[in-house]
Amino acid sequence: MIPDDPTSPAPRADDGIVTAGFLVIGDEILSGRTKDKNIGFLADALTAVGIDLTEVRIVPDDTDRIVEALNALRARWTHVFTSGGIGPTHDDITSDAIAAAFGVGIDHDPRAVAILTARLAGRAEINEARLRMARIPFGADLIVPANGMPGFTLGNVHVMAGVPSVFQAMVEQVVPTLGGGRPMLSRSIDAKVGEGTIATPLGAIQKAHPATVIGSYPYERDGRYATNLVVRSRSQEALDAAHAAIEAMLADIHSHMPAR
Amino acid sequence: MIPDDPTSPAPRADDGIVTAGFLVIGDEILSGRTKDKNIGFLADALTAVGIDLTEVRIVPDDTDRIVEALNALRARWTHVFTSGGIGPTHDDITSDAIAAAFGVGIDHDPRAVAILTARLAGRAEINEARLRMARIPFGADLIVPANGMPGFTLGNVHVMAGVPSVFQAMVEQVVPTLGGGRPMLSRSIDAKVGEGTIATPLGAIQKAHPATVIGSYPYERDGRYATNLVVRSRSQEALDAAHAAIEAMLADIHSHMPAR
Repeated sequence: MIPDDPTSPAPRADDGIVTAGFLVIGDEILSGRTKDKNIGFLADALTAVGIDLTEVRIVPDDTDRIVEALNALRARWTHVFTSGGIGPTHDDITSDAIAAAFGVGIDHDPRAVAILTARLAGRAEINEARLRMARIPFGADLIVPANGMPGFTLGNVHVMAGVPSVFQAMVEQVVPTLGGGRPMLSRSIDAKVGEGTIATPLGAIQKAHPATVIGSYPYERDGRYATNLVVRSRSQEALDAAHAAIEAMLADIHSHMPAR
Repeated sequence: MIPDDPTSPAPRADDGIVTAGFLVIGDEILSGRTKDKNIGFLADALTAVGIDLTEVRIVPDDTDRIVEALNALRARWTHVFTSGGIGPTHDDITSDAIAAAFGVGIDHDPRAVAILTARLAGRAEINEARLRMARIPFGADLIVPANGMPGFTLGNVHVMAGVPSVFQAMVEQVVPTLGGGRPMLSRSIDAKVGEGTIATPLGAIQKAHPATVIGSYPYERDGRYATNLVVRSRSQEALDAAHAAIEAMLADIHSHMPAR
Protein backbone atom coordinates (compact mmCIF):
# COMPACT_ATOMS: atom_id res chain seq x y z
CA MET A 1 0.00 0.00 0.00
CA ILE A 2 1.37 3.40 -0.96
CA PRO A 3 0.26 6.07 1.50
CA ASP A 4 -1.45 9.23 0.20
CA ASP A 5 1.60 11.34 0.85
CA PRO A 6 4.03 9.51 -1.42
CA THR A 7 7.05 10.37 0.68
CA SER A 8 5.67 9.43 4.11
CA PRO A 9 7.09 6.27 5.70
CA ALA A 10 5.21 3.02 5.20
CA PRO A 11 3.02 1.98 8.13
CA ARG A 12 4.23 -0.71 10.51
CA ALA A 13 2.29 -3.92 9.96
CA ASP A 14 -0.14 -4.80 12.76
CA ASP A 15 1.10 -8.37 13.08
CA GLY A 16 4.56 -7.25 14.19
CA ILE A 17 6.11 -8.54 10.97
CA VAL A 18 8.32 -6.05 9.15
CA THR A 19 9.27 -6.86 5.55
CA ALA A 20 11.81 -5.55 3.08
CA GLY A 21 12.52 -5.73 -0.64
CA PHE A 22 15.92 -5.10 -2.25
CA LEU A 23 16.41 -3.63 -5.72
CA VAL A 24 19.92 -4.15 -7.12
CA ILE A 25 20.59 -1.78 -10.02
CA GLY A 26 23.45 -2.67 -12.29
CA ASP A 27 24.36 -3.87 -15.77
CA GLU A 28 27.64 -5.12 -14.32
CA ILE A 29 25.92 -7.67 -12.04
CA LEU A 30 23.73 -8.97 -14.87
CA SER A 31 26.69 -9.29 -17.24
CA GLY A 32 28.66 -11.25 -14.64
CA ARG A 33 31.50 -8.72 -14.66
CA THR A 34 30.90 -7.91 -10.99
CA LYS A 35 29.79 -10.57 -8.51
CA ASP A 36 27.21 -9.24 -6.07
CA LYS A 37 28.23 -9.01 -2.43
CA ASN A 38 25.44 -6.77 -1.19
CA ILE A 39 22.49 -9.20 -1.15
CA GLY A 40 24.07 -11.49 1.46
CA PHE A 41 25.23 -8.56 3.59
CA LEU A 42 21.80 -6.91 3.65
CA ALA A 43 20.08 -10.27 4.31
CA ASP A 44 22.26 -10.84 7.38
CA ALA A 45 21.76 -7.28 8.66
CA LEU A 46 17.96 -7.46 8.31
CA THR A 47 17.69 -10.93 9.87
CA ALA A 48 19.69 -9.68 12.85
CA VAL A 49 17.07 -7.01 13.65
CA GLY A 50 13.98 -9.11 12.89
CA ILE A 51 13.12 -7.70 9.44
CA ASP A 52 12.18 -10.29 6.81
CA LEU A 53 13.85 -9.84 3.41
CA THR A 54 11.03 -11.08 1.20
CA GLU A 55 12.07 -10.22 -2.36
CA VAL A 56 15.15 -9.24 -4.33
CA ARG A 57 15.19 -7.97 -7.91
CA ILE A 58 18.18 -7.17 -10.09
CA VAL A 59 17.54 -4.86 -13.06
CA PRO A 60 19.78 -3.05 -15.59
CA ASP A 61 20.72 0.65 -15.65
CA ASP A 62 17.45 1.59 -17.37
CA THR A 63 15.09 4.24 -16.00
CA ASP A 64 11.84 2.53 -16.99
CA ARG A 65 12.96 -0.81 -15.53
CA ILE A 66 14.06 0.86 -12.26
CA VAL A 67 10.80 2.81 -11.91
CA GLU A 68 8.68 -0.28 -12.60
CA ALA A 69 10.52 -2.52 -10.15
CA LEU A 70 10.73 0.14 -7.46
CA ASN A 71 7.01 0.87 -7.58
CA ALA A 72 6.20 -2.85 -7.38
CA LEU A 73 8.46 -3.33 -4.36
CA ARG A 74 7.58 -0.19 -2.38
CA ALA A 75 3.86 -0.87 -2.69
CA ARG A 76 4.28 -4.38 -1.30
CA TRP A 77 6.93 -4.34 1.44
CA THR A 78 7.47 -2.23 4.56
CA HIS A 79 10.92 -1.08 3.41
CA VAL A 80 12.82 -1.10 0.13
CA PHE A 81 16.58 -0.81 -0.27
CA THR A 82 18.35 -0.03 -3.53
CA SER A 83 22.03 -0.35 -4.41
CA GLY A 84 23.97 1.17 -7.28
CA GLY A 85 23.78 4.04 -9.74
CA ILE A 86 24.32 7.09 -7.51
CA GLY A 87 27.78 8.16 -8.74
CA PRO A 88 28.79 11.08 -11.01
CA THR A 89 28.81 9.39 -14.44
CA HIS A 90 26.22 9.25 -17.22
CA ASP A 91 25.22 5.70 -16.29
CA ASP A 92 24.26 6.75 -12.74
CA ILE A 93 20.53 7.29 -13.13
CA THR A 94 19.12 5.91 -9.89
CA SER A 95 18.35 9.21 -8.11
CA ASP A 96 16.43 10.58 -11.10
CA ALA A 97 14.59 7.27 -11.49
CA ILE A 98 13.56 7.28 -7.81
CA ALA A 99 12.24 10.85 -8.14
CA ALA A 100 10.30 9.79 -11.24
CA ALA A 101 8.86 6.76 -9.44
CA PHE A 102 7.61 8.94 -6.58
CA GLY A 103 6.51 11.75 -8.92
CA VAL A 104 8.57 14.36 -7.07
CA GLY A 105 11.17 16.86 -8.31
CA ILE A 106 14.93 16.55 -7.98
CA ASP A 107 17.69 19.15 -7.80
CA HIS A 108 21.03 19.90 -6.15
CA ASP A 109 20.42 19.59 -2.40
CA PRO A 110 22.20 22.28 -0.29
CA ARG A 111 22.96 19.74 2.48
CA ALA A 112 24.48 17.32 -0.04
CA VAL A 113 26.41 20.09 -1.81
CA ALA A 114 27.91 21.13 1.54
CA ILE A 115 29.00 17.55 2.31
CA LEU A 116 30.44 17.10 -1.18
CA THR A 117 32.34 20.39 -0.95
CA ALA A 118 33.81 19.52 2.45
CA ARG A 119 34.79 15.99 1.40
CA LEU A 120 36.47 17.09 -1.84
CA ALA A 121 38.28 20.13 -0.41
CA GLY A 122 41.95 19.92 -1.39
CA ARG A 123 41.42 16.59 -3.17
CA ALA A 124 39.52 17.41 -6.34
CA GLU A 125 37.71 20.27 -8.04
CA ILE A 126 33.94 20.64 -7.67
CA ASN A 127 32.89 20.16 -11.28
CA GLU A 128 29.45 19.67 -12.83
CA ALA A 129 29.82 15.89 -12.85
CA ARG A 130 30.71 15.64 -9.17
CA LEU A 131 27.81 17.97 -8.34
CA ARG A 132 25.50 15.37 -9.94
CA MET A 133 26.09 13.32 -6.79
CA ALA A 134 24.35 16.07 -4.78
CA ARG A 135 21.12 15.74 -6.80
CA ILE A 136 18.55 14.49 -4.26
CA PRO A 137 14.78 14.11 -4.75
CA PHE A 138 12.62 16.67 -2.93
CA GLY A 139 11.50 15.51 0.52
CA ALA A 140 14.31 12.99 1.05
CA ASP A 141 16.48 12.62 4.16
CA LEU A 142 20.20 12.12 3.56
CA ILE A 143 22.12 8.99 4.50
CA VAL A 144 25.69 10.14 5.16
CA PRO A 145 28.31 7.39 5.44
CA ALA A 146 31.81 8.13 6.72
CA ASN A 147 33.40 6.64 3.59
CA GLY A 148 31.39 7.95 0.66
CA MET A 149 28.95 10.44 -0.82
CA PRO A 150 25.39 10.64 0.54
CA GLY A 151 22.52 8.31 -0.24
CA PHE A 152 18.98 9.14 0.86
CA THR A 153 15.70 7.87 2.29
CA LEU A 154 12.49 8.87 0.51
CA GLY A 155 9.28 7.47 1.99
CA ASN A 156 9.99 3.79 2.65
CA VAL A 157 12.86 3.62 0.12
CA HIS A 158 16.52 3.69 1.18
CA VAL A 159 18.86 4.53 -1.72
CA MET A 160 22.43 3.31 -1.26
CA ALA A 161 25.74 3.02 -3.07
CA GLY A 162 26.70 -0.09 -5.04
CA VAL A 163 30.34 -0.19 -3.93
CA PRO A 164 30.23 -2.82 -1.13
CA SER A 165 32.27 -0.87 1.45
CA VAL A 166 30.00 2.17 1.13
CA PHE A 167 26.83 0.06 0.88
CA GLN A 168 27.79 -1.72 4.10
CA ALA A 169 28.46 1.55 5.94
CA MET A 170 25.03 2.82 4.86
CA VAL A 171 23.27 -0.41 5.91
CA GLU A 172 24.94 -0.30 9.32
CA GLN A 173 23.74 3.27 9.73
CA VAL A 174 20.14 2.85 8.50
CA VAL A 175 18.98 -0.64 9.48
CA PRO A 176 19.28 -0.19 13.29
CA THR A 177 16.99 2.89 13.08
CA LEU A 178 14.13 1.12 11.30
CA GLY A 179 12.53 -0.73 14.18
CA GLY A 180 12.57 -4.45 13.65
CA GLY A 181 9.70 -6.82 14.04
CA ARG A 182 9.41 -9.72 16.39
CA PRO A 183 12.71 -11.40 15.59
CA MET A 184 12.78 -14.67 13.69
CA LEU A 185 14.53 -17.22 15.93
CA SER A 186 16.38 -20.18 14.48
CA ARG A 187 18.15 -23.39 15.50
CA SER A 188 20.28 -25.55 13.19
CA ILE A 189 20.85 -29.29 13.30
CA ASP A 190 23.54 -31.06 11.28
CA ALA A 191 21.97 -34.38 10.28
CA LYS A 192 24.52 -36.98 9.24
CA VAL A 193 22.11 -38.57 6.75
CA GLY A 194 20.88 -37.64 3.30
CA GLU A 195 17.63 -35.73 2.74
CA GLY A 196 15.93 -38.74 1.18
CA THR A 197 16.30 -40.75 4.40
CA ILE A 198 14.59 -38.19 6.63
CA ALA A 199 12.23 -36.43 4.23
CA THR A 200 9.07 -38.34 5.19
CA PRO A 201 9.34 -38.05 9.01
CA LEU A 202 10.59 -34.46 8.60
CA GLY A 203 7.50 -33.57 6.57
CA ALA A 204 5.34 -35.02 9.36
CA ILE A 205 7.20 -32.91 11.94
CA GLN A 206 6.68 -29.78 9.83
CA LYS A 207 2.93 -30.54 9.69
CA ALA A 208 2.77 -31.06 13.46
CA HIS A 209 4.59 -27.76 14.16
CA PRO A 210 2.84 -25.18 11.98
CA ALA A 211 4.27 -22.19 13.89
CA THR A 212 7.72 -23.12 12.58
CA VAL A 213 9.33 -23.19 9.14
CA ILE A 214 11.71 -26.12 8.74
CA GLY A 215 14.29 -25.83 5.97
CA SER A 216 16.33 -28.74 4.68
CA TYR A 217 19.67 -28.05 2.93
CA PRO A 218 21.57 -31.02 1.50
CA TYR A 219 25.33 -31.12 1.19
CA GLU A 220 27.97 -33.72 0.37
CA ARG A 221 31.22 -34.20 2.25
CA ASP A 222 33.81 -36.93 1.74
CA GLY A 223 31.43 -38.68 -0.62
CA ARG A 224 28.63 -38.96 1.96
CA TYR A 225 25.32 -37.14 1.81
CA ALA A 226 24.31 -35.06 4.82
CA THR A 227 21.71 -32.40 5.56
CA ASN A 228 21.60 -29.13 7.43
CA LEU A 229 18.20 -28.66 9.03
CA VAL A 230 17.17 -25.18 10.11
CA VAL A 231 14.07 -24.56 12.23
CA ARG A 232 12.79 -20.98 12.28
CA SER A 233 9.96 -19.47 14.31
CA ARG A 234 8.98 -16.25 16.05
CA SER A 235 8.00 -18.34 19.11
CA GLN A 236 10.78 -19.75 21.30
CA GLU A 237 8.42 -22.44 22.59
CA ALA A 238 7.39 -23.58 19.12
CA LEU A 239 11.05 -23.52 18.02
CA ASP A 240 12.19 -25.70 20.90
CA ALA A 241 9.35 -28.18 20.43
CA ALA A 242 10.11 -28.70 16.72
CA HIS A 243 13.82 -28.92 17.46
CA ALA A 244 13.20 -31.65 20.06
CA ALA A 245 11.02 -33.58 17.62
CA ILE A 246 13.76 -33.51 14.98
CA GLU A 247 16.41 -34.66 17.49
CA ALA A 248 14.18 -37.56 18.51
CA MET A 249 13.55 -38.48 14.87
CA LEU A 250 17.28 -38.48 14.08
CA ALA A 251 18.08 -40.58 17.20
CA ASP A 252 15.47 -43.10 16.08
CA ILE A 253 16.94 -43.28 12.56
CA HIS A 254 20.51 -43.72 13.85
CA SER A 255 19.43 -46.53 16.20
CA HIS A 256 18.16 -48.46 13.15
CA MET A 257 21.19 -47.83 10.94
CA PRO A 258 23.83 -50.53 10.43
CA ALA A 259 27.18 -49.84 12.10
CA ARG A 260 29.72 -48.37 9.65
CA MET B 1 4.34 -13.18 -25.08
CA ILE B 2 3.25 -16.65 -24.01
CA PRO B 3 2.63 -18.85 -27.06
CA ASP B 4 -0.74 -20.62 -27.43
CA ASP B 5 0.76 -23.99 -26.58
CA PRO B 6 2.02 -23.15 -23.09
CA THR B 7 4.86 -25.65 -23.25
CA SER B 8 6.26 -24.74 -26.69
CA PRO B 9 9.59 -22.90 -26.71
CA ALA B 10 9.57 -19.11 -26.84
CA PRO B 11 10.18 -17.61 -30.28
CA ARG B 12 13.60 -16.20 -31.12
CA ALA B 13 13.47 -12.41 -31.23
CA ASP B 14 13.76 -10.92 -34.74
CA ASP B 15 16.47 -8.45 -33.76
CA GLY B 16 18.92 -11.24 -32.91
CA ILE B 17 18.81 -10.35 -29.22
CA VAL B 18 18.13 -13.27 -26.90
CA THR B 19 17.17 -12.46 -23.29
CA ALA B 20 16.93 -14.44 -20.07
CA GLY B 21 15.44 -14.04 -16.60
CA PHE B 22 16.58 -15.94 -13.52
CA LEU B 23 14.30 -16.90 -10.62
CA VAL B 24 16.18 -17.89 -7.47
CA ILE B 25 13.91 -19.82 -5.08
CA GLY B 26 15.02 -20.05 -1.50
CA ASP B 27 14.29 -18.89 2.04
CA GLU B 28 17.94 -19.59 2.85
CA ILE B 29 19.23 -16.93 0.43
CA LEU B 30 16.77 -14.32 1.74
CA SER B 31 17.63 -15.06 5.38
CA GLY B 32 21.35 -14.69 4.63
CA ARG B 33 22.08 -18.24 5.83
CA THR B 34 23.32 -19.22 2.37
CA LYS B 35 25.20 -16.77 0.14
CA ASP B 36 24.16 -17.08 -3.49
CA LYS B 37 26.75 -18.34 -5.94
CA ASN B 38 24.46 -19.15 -8.86
CA ILE B 39 23.63 -15.65 -10.14
CA GLY B 40 27.23 -14.82 -11.05
CA PHE B 41 27.82 -18.24 -12.59
CA LEU B 42 24.72 -18.05 -14.80
CA ALA B 43 25.49 -14.43 -15.77
CA ASP B 44 28.96 -15.46 -16.98
CA ALA B 45 27.64 -18.51 -18.87
CA LEU B 46 24.93 -16.49 -20.66
CA THR B 47 27.24 -13.58 -21.53
CA ALA B 48 29.67 -16.09 -23.07
CA VAL B 49 27.06 -17.29 -25.58
CA GLY B 50 25.52 -13.88 -26.34
CA ILE B 51 22.37 -14.18 -24.22
CA ASP B 52 21.49 -11.06 -22.17
CA LEU B 53 20.53 -11.73 -18.55
CA THR B 54 17.96 -8.96 -18.11
CA GLU B 55 16.29 -9.67 -14.75
CA VAL B 56 16.85 -11.66 -11.58
CA ARG B 57 14.31 -12.22 -8.84
CA ILE B 58 14.77 -13.99 -5.51
CA VAL B 59 11.58 -15.24 -3.80
CA PRO B 60 10.87 -17.46 -0.77
CA ASP B 61 9.72 -21.11 -0.78
CA ASP B 62 6.08 -20.11 -1.33
CA THR B 63 3.96 -21.51 -4.17
CA ASP B 64 2.00 -18.32 -4.90
CA ARG B 65 5.14 -16.19 -4.94
CA ILE B 66 6.94 -18.65 -7.26
CA VAL B 67 3.98 -18.87 -9.68
CA GLU B 68 3.59 -15.07 -9.80
CA ALA B 69 7.28 -14.38 -10.43
CA LEU B 70 7.66 -17.21 -12.94
CA ASN B 71 4.69 -16.07 -15.01
CA ALA B 72 6.00 -12.49 -15.05
CA LEU B 73 9.45 -13.61 -16.19
CA ARG B 74 8.46 -16.23 -18.79
CA ALA B 75 6.06 -13.82 -20.50
CA ARG B 76 8.77 -11.18 -20.86
CA TRP B 77 12.08 -12.90 -21.62
CA THR B 78 13.20 -15.47 -24.19
CA HIS B 79 14.39 -17.93 -21.53
CA VAL B 80 13.88 -18.30 -17.79
CA PHE B 81 16.10 -20.28 -15.43
CA THR B 82 15.14 -21.30 -11.91
CA SER B 83 17.33 -22.62 -9.10
CA GLY B 84 16.35 -24.41 -5.91
CA GLY B 85 13.48 -26.42 -4.46
CA ILE B 86 13.65 -29.68 -6.45
CA GLY B 87 14.83 -32.05 -3.70
CA PRO B 88 12.90 -34.71 -1.73
CA THR B 89 11.79 -32.71 1.35
CA HIS B 90 8.53 -30.93 2.22
CA ASP B 91 10.06 -27.50 1.44
CA ASP B 92 10.89 -28.53 -2.15
CA ILE B 93 7.85 -27.18 -3.98
CA THR B 94 9.33 -25.80 -7.20
CA SER B 95 8.23 -28.58 -9.59
CA ASP B 96 4.61 -28.41 -8.43
CA ALA B 97 4.69 -24.59 -8.61
CA ILE B 98 6.02 -24.70 -12.20
CA ALA B 99 3.26 -27.12 -13.22
CA ALA B 100 0.70 -24.81 -11.59
CA ALA B 101 2.15 -21.76 -13.39
CA PHE B 102 1.85 -23.51 -16.76
CA GLY B 103 -1.54 -25.06 -15.90
CA VAL B 104 -0.33 -28.59 -16.67
CA GLY B 105 -0.42 -31.79 -14.61
CA ILE B 106 2.48 -33.36 -12.74
CA ASP B 107 3.26 -36.95 -11.77
CA HIS B 108 6.09 -39.44 -11.38
CA ASP B 109 7.89 -39.48 -14.73
CA PRO B 110 9.02 -42.96 -15.89
CA ARG B 111 12.29 -41.55 -17.32
CA ALA B 112 13.08 -39.77 -14.07
CA VAL B 113 12.12 -42.82 -11.97
CA ALA B 114 14.51 -44.95 -14.05
CA ILE B 115 17.36 -42.49 -13.53
CA LEU B 116 16.62 -42.23 -9.80
CA THR B 117 16.52 -46.02 -9.47
CA ALA B 118 19.82 -46.46 -11.29
CA ARG B 119 21.58 -43.70 -9.33
CA LEU B 120 20.40 -44.94 -5.93
CA ALA B 121 21.02 -48.67 -6.56
CA GLY B 122 23.08 -50.08 -3.69
CA ARG B 123 23.29 -46.66 -2.01
CA ALA B 124 19.85 -45.98 -0.61
CA GLU B 125 16.32 -47.35 -0.66
CA ILE B 126 13.77 -45.93 -3.10
CA ASN B 127 11.27 -44.47 -0.67
CA GLU B 128 8.30 -42.20 -1.20
CA ALA B 129 10.30 -39.06 -0.40
CA ARG B 130 13.08 -39.85 -2.88
CA LEU B 131 10.45 -40.63 -5.53
CA ARG B 132 9.19 -37.06 -5.10
CA MET B 133 12.32 -36.02 -7.02
CA ALA B 134 10.93 -37.89 -10.06
CA ARG B 135 7.76 -35.76 -10.15
CA ILE B 136 8.01 -33.87 -13.46
CA PRO B 137 5.33 -31.65 -15.09
CA PHE B 138 3.65 -33.14 -18.17
CA GLY B 139 5.34 -32.14 -21.43
CA ALA B 140 8.74 -31.38 -19.91
CA ASP B 141 12.13 -32.56 -21.19
CA LEU B 142 14.58 -33.81 -18.57
CA ILE B 143 17.90 -32.13 -17.79
CA VAL B 144 20.16 -34.92 -16.52
CA PRO B 145 23.42 -33.82 -14.87
CA ALA B 146 26.17 -36.33 -14.09
CA ASN B 147 26.24 -35.31 -10.42
CA GLY B 148 22.61 -35.02 -9.37
CA MET B 149 18.95 -35.80 -9.89
CA PRO B 150 17.16 -34.52 -13.02
CA GLY B 151 15.88 -31.01 -13.60
CA PHE B 152 13.66 -30.23 -16.57
CA THR B 153 12.81 -27.80 -19.36
CA LEU B 154 9.14 -26.84 -19.84
CA GLY B 155 8.45 -24.33 -22.62
CA ASN B 156 11.03 -21.59 -22.17
CA VAL B 157 11.67 -22.41 -18.49
CA HIS B 158 14.72 -24.38 -17.34
CA VAL B 159 14.33 -25.77 -13.82
CA MET B 160 17.61 -26.47 -12.03
CA ALA B 161 19.01 -27.51 -8.67
CA GLY B 162 20.03 -24.95 -6.04
CA VAL B 163 23.21 -26.76 -4.92
CA PRO B 164 25.90 -24.86 -6.87
CA SER B 165 27.82 -27.91 -8.15
CA VAL B 166 24.64 -29.44 -9.62
CA PHE B 167 23.34 -26.06 -10.84
CA GLN B 168 26.62 -25.48 -12.66
CA ALA B 169 26.55 -28.91 -14.30
CA MET B 170 23.01 -28.23 -15.52
CA VAL B 171 23.89 -24.75 -16.85
CA GLU B 172 26.89 -26.16 -18.73
CA GLN B 173 24.60 -28.75 -20.29
CA VAL B 174 21.65 -26.51 -21.21
CA VAL B 175 23.04 -23.08 -22.11
CA PRO B 176 25.14 -24.19 -25.13
CA THR B 177 22.00 -25.75 -26.70
CA LEU B 178 19.90 -22.59 -26.56
CA GLY B 179 21.26 -20.67 -29.52
CA GLY B 180 22.76 -17.38 -28.46
CA GLY B 181 22.15 -14.02 -30.02
CA ARG B 182 24.67 -11.77 -31.64
CA PRO B 183 27.27 -11.76 -28.91
CA MET B 184 27.81 -8.65 -26.81
CA LEU B 185 31.45 -7.62 -27.28
CA SER B 186 33.32 -5.70 -24.61
CA ARG B 187 36.61 -3.92 -23.95
CA SER B 188 37.82 -2.68 -20.55
CA ILE B 189 40.04 0.28 -19.75
CA ASP B 190 41.59 0.84 -16.33
CA ALA B 191 41.53 4.62 -15.85
CA LYS B 192 43.92 5.83 -13.17
CA VAL B 193 41.66 8.75 -12.24
CA GLY B 194 38.44 9.06 -10.25
CA GLU B 195 35.00 9.02 -11.87
CA GLY B 196 34.40 12.69 -11.08
CA THR B 197 37.39 13.74 -13.20
CA ILE B 198 36.24 11.98 -16.37
CA ALA B 199 32.47 11.96 -15.99
CA THR B 200 31.73 14.96 -18.23
CA PRO B 201 33.91 13.98 -21.25
CA LEU B 202 32.83 10.34 -20.77
CA GLY B 203 29.18 11.35 -20.97
CA ALA B 204 29.93 13.19 -24.23
CA ILE B 205 31.63 10.07 -25.63
CA GLN B 206 28.61 7.94 -24.68
CA LYS B 207 26.34 10.39 -26.54
CA ALA B 208 28.58 10.33 -29.63
CA HIS B 209 28.66 6.50 -29.70
CA PRO B 210 25.03 5.43 -29.30
CA ALA B 211 25.66 1.87 -30.53
CA THR B 212 27.73 1.24 -27.40
CA VAL B 213 26.97 1.06 -23.69
CA ILE B 214 29.75 2.55 -21.58
CA GLY B 215 29.83 1.52 -17.94
CA SER B 216 31.89 3.27 -15.29
CA TYR B 217 32.89 1.38 -12.11
CA PRO B 218 34.79 3.27 -9.43
CA TYR B 219 37.25 1.63 -7.07
CA GLU B 220 39.82 2.74 -4.53
CA ARG B 221 43.33 1.33 -4.20
CA ASP B 222 46.11 2.55 -1.90
CA GLY B 223 44.00 5.58 -1.03
CA ARG B 224 43.64 6.73 -4.65
CA TYR B 225 40.42 6.75 -6.64
CA ALA B 226 40.41 4.96 -9.98
CA THR B 227 37.79 3.76 -12.45
CA ASN B 228 37.20 0.71 -14.55
CA LEU B 229 35.54 1.64 -17.82
CA VAL B 230 33.77 -1.06 -19.82
CA VAL B 231 32.55 -0.46 -23.36
CA ARG B 232 30.00 -2.97 -24.69
CA SER B 233 28.48 -3.26 -28.15
CA ARG B 234 27.24 -5.84 -30.62
CA SER B 235 29.28 -4.05 -33.33
CA GLN B 236 33.07 -4.47 -33.36
CA GLU B 237 33.44 -1.23 -35.30
CA ALA B 238 31.35 0.80 -32.85
CA LEU B 239 33.21 -0.83 -29.94
CA ASP B 240 36.63 0.08 -31.33
CA ALA B 241 35.59 3.67 -32.12
CA ALA B 242 34.29 4.32 -28.59
CA HIS B 243 37.34 2.62 -27.09
CA ALA B 244 39.67 4.89 -29.12
CA ALA B 245 37.71 7.98 -28.05
CA ILE B 246 38.10 7.01 -24.38
CA GLU B 247 41.85 6.36 -24.77
CA ALA B 248 42.27 9.79 -26.41
CA MET B 249 40.25 11.45 -23.63
CA LEU B 250 42.38 9.79 -20.93
CA ALA B 251 45.64 10.77 -22.70
CA ASP B 252 44.44 14.35 -22.84
CA ILE B 253 43.57 14.38 -19.13
CA HIS B 254 46.91 12.85 -18.14
CA SER B 255 48.82 15.44 -20.22
CA HIS B 256 47.19 18.17 -18.11
CA MET B 257 47.73 16.53 -14.74
CA PRO B 258 50.54 17.71 -12.44
CA ALA B 259 53.41 15.22 -12.08
CA ARG B 260 53.13 13.13 -8.88
